[in-house]
Amino acid sequence: MTIDGCPAGLPLAIQEIQQALDLRIPQESDVVSARREPDVVEIFSGVFQNHTTGAPITLQIRNKGAKPSDYEQMRDVVRPGHADYPAKMKYGGFSDYRGGGRLSGRMTAAFVAAGSIAIKLLSQSGVEVLAYTFSIGGLRLATLPSPVAVRKMTFANSMRCPDEEVAEKMRDIVLNAKQEGDSVGGIVECTVLNLPVGVGEPLFDALDAELAKILFGVPAVKGVEFGAGFQSSRMRGSENNDQYVIENDRIVTLTNNSGGVLGGMSNGMPLVLRVAFKPPSSIARDQKTVNLSKMEETTLGVKGRHDPCVVPKAVPVVQSMVAIAIADLMLRGGMIPRVLKS
Amino acid sequence: MTIDGCPAGLPLAIQEIQQALDLRIPQESDVVSARREPDVVEIFSGVFQNHTTGAPITLQIRNKGAKPSDYEQMRDVVRPGHADYPAKMKYGGFSDYRGGGRLSGRMTAAFVAAGSIAIKLLSQSGVEVLAYTFSIGGLRLATLPSPVAVRKMTFANSMRCPDEEVAEKMRDIVLNAKQEGDSVGGIVECTVLNLPVGVGEPLFDALDAELAKILFGVPAVKGVEFGAGFQSSRMRGSENNDQYVIENDRIVTLTNNSGGVLGGMSNGMPLVLRVAFKPPSSIARDQKTVNLSKMEETTLGVKGRHDPCVVPKAVPVVQSMVAIAIADLMLRGGMIPRVLKS
Amino acid sequence: MTIDGCPAGLPLAIQEIQQALDLRIPQESDVVSARREPDVVEIFSGVFQNHTTGAPITLQIRNKGAKPSDYEQMRDVVRPGHADYPAKMKYGGFSDYRGGGRLSGRMTAAFVAAGSIAIKLLSQSGVEVLAYTFSIGGLRLATLPSPVAVRKMTFANSMRCPDEEVAEKMRDIVLNAKQEGDSVGGIVECTVLNLPVGVGEPLFDALDAELAKILFGVPAVKGVEFGAGFQSSRMRGSENNDQYVIENDRIVTLTNNSGGVLGGMSNGMPLVLRVAFKPPSSIARDQKTVNLSKMEETTLGVKGRHDPCVVPKAVPVVQSMVAIAIADLMLRGGMIPRVLKS
Amino acid sequence: MTIDGCPAGLPLAIQEIQQALDLRIPQESDVVSARREPDVVEIFSGVFQNHTTGAPITLQIRNKGAKPSDYEQMRDVVRPGHADYPAKMKYGGFSDYRGGGRLSGRMTAAFVAAGSIAIKLLSQSGVEVLAYTFSIGGLRLATLPSPVAVRKMTFANSMRCPDEEVAEKMRDIVLNAKQEGDSVGGIVECTVLNLPVGVGEPLFDALDAELAKILFGVPAVKGVEFGAGFQSSRMRGSENNDQYVIENDRIVTLTNNSGGVLGGMSNGMPLVLRVAFKPPSSIARDQKTVNLSKMEETTLGVKGRHDPCVVPKAVPVVQSMVAIAIADLMLRGGMIPRVLKS
Repeated sequence: MTIDGCPAGLPLAIQEIQQALDLRIPQESDVVSARREPDVVEIFSGVFQNHTTGAPITLQIRNKGAKPSDYEQMRDVVRPGHADYPAKMKYGGFSDYRGGGRLSGRMTAAFVAAGSIAIKLLSQSGVEVLAYTFSIGGLRLATLPSPVAVRKMTFANSMRCPDEEVAEKMRDIVLNAKQEGDSVGGIVECTVLNLPVGVGEPLFDALDAELAKILFGVPAVKGVEFGAGFQSSRMRGSENNDQYVIENDRIVTLTNNSGGVLGGMSNGMPLVLRVAFKPPSSIARDQKTVNLSKMEETTLGVKGRHDPCVVPKAVPVVQSMVAIAIADLMLRGGMIPRVLKS
Repeated sequence: MTIDGCPAGLPLAIQEIQQALDLRIPQESDVVSARREPDVVEIFSGVFQNHTTGAPITLQIRNKGAKPSDYEQMRDVVRPGHADYPAKMKYGGFSDYRGGGRLSGRMTAAFVAAGSIAIKLLSQSGVEVLAYTFSIGGLRLATLPSPVAVRKMTFANSMRCPDEEVAEKMRDIVLNAKQEGDSVGGIVECTVLNLPVGVGEPLFDALDAELAKILFGVPAVKGVEFGAGFQSSRMRGSENNDQYVIENDRIVTLTNNSGGVLGGMSNGMPLVLRVAFKPPSSIARDQKTVNLSKMEETTLGVKGRHDPCVVPKAVPVVQSMVAIAIADLMLRGGMIPRVLKS
Repeated sequence: MTIDGCPAGLPLAIQEIQQALDLRIPQESDVVSARREPDVVEIFSGVFQNHTTGAPITLQIRNKGAKPSDYEQMRDVVRPGHADYPAKMKYGGFSDYRGGGRLSGRMTAAFVAAGSIAIKLLSQSGVEVLAYTFSIGGLRLATLPSPVAVRKMTFANSMRCPDEEVAEKMRDIVLNAKQEGDSVGGIVECTVLNLPVGVGEPLFDALDAELAKILFGVPAVKGVEFGAGFQSSRMRGSENNDQYVIENDRIVTLTNNSGGVLGGMSNGMPLVLRVAFKPPSSIARDQKTVNLSKMEETTLGVKGRHDPCVVPKAVPVVQSMVAIAIADLMLRGGMIPRVLKS
Repeated sequence: MTIDGCPAGLPLAIQEIQQALDLRIPQESDVVSARREPDVVEIFSGVFQNHTTGAPITLQIRNKGAKPSDYEQMRDVVRPGHADYPAKMKYGGFSDYRGGGRLSGRMTAAFVAAGSIAIKLLSQSGVEVLAYTFSIGGLRLATLPSPVAVRKMTFANSMRCPDEEVAEKMRDIVLNAKQEGDSVGGIVECTVLNLPVGVGEPLFDALDAELAKILFGVPAVKGVEFGAGFQSSRMRGSENNDQYVIENDRIVTLTNNSGGVLGGMSNGMPLVLRVAFKPPSSIARDQKTVNLSKMEETTLGVKGRHDPCVVPKAVPVVQSMVAIAIADLMLRGGMIPRVLKS
C-alpha cells in the first residue's frame, strides 16, 4: 500500500501504525472470527529518522494465515450477499475465487494502517476523529455520547460502544445471532472535532461527497448520512435549520442537524455522520444459490468461523476513512502545510 | 457547462435537452417558488448534424430573472441552513453573496441538461433510470412502485409521485407547511433497470461510491442508501442476504436487499437507491442568526417566494445524476463503445 | 471555458483578459491570416466586484467570423498535416469537418484568456513568465535575451522577437514563404523568473512533465526541451553539470544547462524551455491526398488566407500554458494561498 | 508497485517480468556501474493461475545491495546536476539524503517491470514498441533502422544500438569519458508499430502529451520530440507535410515527419519519438558545490563507480514508459477490451 501526498516532517514511528492495527480486532474471541496471526506492518519508504520525508509512504502487511483450501467450494458456487457473482461476471472468470483479495474484509487492515497516519497528521492541526458503535441489530445509543466517554470507553469493550450498558446488550445480540448460525448488522457513528470552517470543495469534491465516496468503498456499507440525515426528510425547516448564535465570541449553532456540513463545506460545528453496515453475508445457515458451471440451483452454508457482526471491527475502519478523506481535503485546500515544522 | 467523454454518433437534438428542462419544474405554482423565465438551452459545441461528434459538448442556460437586489440583506447576515456562512469563511469574504452561484439550486438546471444526454446515451444500451418521490414530510410510498406506474404517473402530478393518492396527500403536507411559513423534507427513490452485471470499479470507484459522491453534490442532500440501506443495520444475515435462483435461464435473486450492488459492482438486479433531502432552509419565519460585520445576533425571515419542498424538483435531478455516474462508469468499463453505430 | 481552482481575492478586471486577447494576434496583416472580428471575452461567473470569488471562472469568447462554407471541400478530402484524417477515423465520421473546433488554432484564444488569469495570479507571488520567438525557419537568436529586452521588445514587432534586427530577418523569411504559397516553422522560448525552489511533484507530476504535457496540447507543437535540452545529449557531464556557488548569500549555479529543473522540481534558477512548432499545414501549393468517400487519390491546395508561420501567434500561447501549469503546481504544492489578502 | 487497470485474462508469468528486468542492465561491466545483486521480482496480487485477474497487480523488487554509508557525504553537500538541492529545499530537510529513493535511477527497475506487462498487453492487439539507442555523445544513427534490425541487434550489444558498427564507436565514446572521470549523454529513439488510428484524447490527454509527460518522469530526460521534431522548426510546410496516398487499399503517407501523431491522435503510421538524456551527473571529477549546513562553497567528486552513460539502461525504460502510456490511452479509448478472451 502506498500513501502519497503526506507532508514532510510528520513525526511517525512504525509502532504507532502497529498499535492501530493491534486495536483493530477485539480481543474477545467469541464475537469475532477466529484470530489469525496478528497483522505486522513494515515500512518500505517515505519515513526516515522517524519523520515522514514527503515521498510516498509504502507499507506492507503480509497476509498471514489465509488458507486457500477453505475457499475451494467457492470456485463455482456463489455466496449470497458476497461480491463473488458480479466479480466472476465482470472479470470473465479470471478473478481469484479464493477470497482475501481486494473485495475481502482483509483490505480494512490496510485502511486502518493508512488511517493511523492521517489521524496523526490531523492531530497536528488539532482535528480529532472519533468513531464508535452507534447501533447493533436495531439497539442504539439513546444520545450523542460525549467526546470524553468516546475516548475513554470505546475501545474498552468488544463492541466498541462508548456506553458500557448498551455494549453489554449489543454483545448479547451478537452472541445470540451467532448461536443461531446467523449474523447482525449495525451502524457506526463518527464525530470530527475542531474541524476548521470551509473544508470541502463544492460542488463535486464536497466534504460530504468525498466522505460518502470513501465510506462506500468499505465492504458491507449500505448507507451514509450526515447530521439528522434521513430523519431530516421527516422534519420541517423551522425545526431542522440550525440557528446561529454567538457564544464566547464564536459563531455556533443551537442545534447540529446539518452534522457540521453545509453546501459541501464544514461549518465549524462537529462533523457527525453515520454509516450503516449490513449483517455479514457469510452465515452457517443453508441458503439458496447457484452453481455457475453447472448452471443449477443448490444450497450453501458457509463453513468455518465467521464474524457474526462486522460493526466492532468497522469502528476503526470508519475512523480511518474519515481521517483520510479529511486530510486529503485539508491538504488540497491549503489548510495543512506541505512541510511540518518540528 | 461542458460535457466531455460522450461517444460520437449519439443522435441528439436540442429539443430533447429543452424538453428535460421544461419538465424540471412542476407547472403548479402553489407548490414551487414563483416561476422565473423558462430555462432556454443553447448548444455551442459537440453536436453536428443532430449527432454528437465525440468532442466536448458545451451547453449554456442563461440565468434569466435573477434579481440581485433581493439578496442585499445577505451581505452581512447569514441564513440558517444555507452555505452562506462557510462560504464567506472559506473564501475570505470574496464570495458572491447574491446567490445564484454554484451553491444555489439553480445549478440543478445544468445537472438536468447534462443528465438528459446521459439518459439518452444509456437508453442506447437499454438502461433505464427511473426516479420519483418516495416520501414527503414522513409520508411515504407503501411499496416499490412498478416501472409502468413510474413511467406513466410520476410527471403527471406536481409531487412527482407515481401513486396518485399518496401524491394528493403529499401536496397537502407541502401546502400546509407553506401556509405556516415553513418547509418540509422528503426522499427521492431511484431505480435503474437493465443495468449489466459488473458496472463499477472496486474499491474506490465503486458503483455505490460514485453514485453517493455525485448525489451528495446536489444541494440539500443529507443521506444516501442502497437497497435495504439503513434498515439492513437492523436485520439478520439470513433475512438480508439475497438468495440466488435461476429464472428463465437467468440468475436472479429472491429479494433485492442489496439494491443491485455487491462489492461495488452491479449484480444484474434493479439498482435501487434513496436520497434524503432536508427541508428547504429559506423560510418566512424569523430565525436566529448573526450579522457578521457587526458580529452581533439578529433574526432573519427570508423574504420572497421560496420552495416549501425541494423534492418534486429534485426528482429529475436525482435521475440525471444517477444517469451521469452510470454512463461514466460504463464508458470507463468499456461497456459503451466510443463511437455509436447509426 | 471554465477555470477552476483560482484562489479567491485575486484582483481581476475583464479588461485585463481582453487586453491579453488583443495582443494575441500581430497587427501587421501581411504575416498573419486575414483578421477576423476581434475576440471579445465575457465573464459569466467567478468574478465579483473585480475580484475572483473562489468559484469557477467561466469565460466566453464567441466564435465570430467563421464561414462554414469555406470548409465544404474538407468533408471528404483530408488535408495533409492536419488532424482531419485521424479525427474522422476516431470519431466514425461524426466529427465536425468544418474546422473551428477544438483541434483548430482558434482554441488558442481560450488558452490566452485563461493564461492571462494565471499570469496575474503568479505575478502576486512575484513569478514572471516571459515567452518570445527564438527562431523562425532556422534563423535563431544568438544568445539568451535579457528580461529587460524581452519585456520591452517582444510585443513591439510582428515576429514577437526581442531582437529587432533578427525580427526583421524573420519577417523576410515568413513573407518569402508566403509568396511561394508555403509556410515555415520555428521555436518559441520561454523563461520563468523568480520561481521558488521545489515547484513540481516528482515523479509523475514533475515540473517538466506537467509543462511538456500542457505544451503538447497546443496545435503544431512537435518538441519540447528544457535548458540545454537536446544539446545536452552531445555534452559531457563535467560540462553539463551546473556547479553551485554562493552569490549574495543565495545559492546559484554557474551555468543553467538544467533550465532550472532538477528531478522534476524547480531549483531556483530561471526556468528555460523551448517549444518547436512545425510549419502550418495549410498551404496554397497542391499536395497529394485522398478523397475518403471515393477512396481515391487526389490533390489539394488549401484556399483562402492562412498563417505562413504560427510562431508569432504562439508566443502568448506558450506563455499562457506555462503560466497555467506552474500556477496549478504552486497551488497544489501549497505555495499560493487559497485566499489572497487584499 | 501497484498497476491498476490491467484487463483480466492476460496470460502472464512472473518469468516474463523477471526476464525484462534481467535484460535491463547490460552484462558488460565496463560501461555500467558495478553490478549489484540482480533485481528479483515478486507478485503479490492481480495474477492467478498465470492470468491477470482484473484486480490491481502488486509487484515488489527488494532494493538489495544499497549501501547507505556511501551516501553520508550527501547529508550536507549537494551534488551538481542531481535533485538533492531542490529536494532538500522542498521537503524542509526531511528528505532521505541516502539516495535510492524515488528520485534515483533505481526507480527505473519498477518502470521496466510495469512496462513488461504493458508490452505484453499491447502485443495482444498486435502493437509493438521498439526502443534503441539513437545517439551517444553526438554520434548518431544515420537512418531510421528497420524493425528487423532493431529486434535482432538492439539487445545484442552493450550500447543497445541496432547498428553494430555504430555501437562499437559509441562504446569507445563511453569508455573514453569514463577514463577521464567524466560522463556522456545521448538520445533514445522509440518506434511503435501497428498502432491503430485515433489513439489519444485531444486536447489535453493527447497521445504526444501523455507520452511526453510520462517520459519527463524518467530521470535525466531533457527533451522529447516526435517525428521531425525540432528539425521541423527549420522546414517549410511543403516539405514537412506528409502527403497521403493509397497503398494496398490502405491510406499511408509518403513521409512521416509527423512521427505518426496529428492533432494529438495516432494517424496509423509508425509512431516515432526521441528522448534526450543528459550525461549522468555523478562524475569523479571535482566540481564546485555548496555545503548547506555551513553555507559555504566546497568541491565534490562523487566517489564509487557510476554509470558513464545512462542511455543503454534507458532503452528498456523508454520502451516501458511508451508502452504504459499507450496501453492506458487504448484502454481509455475502448480499444482494448476489459476482459481478454483466452
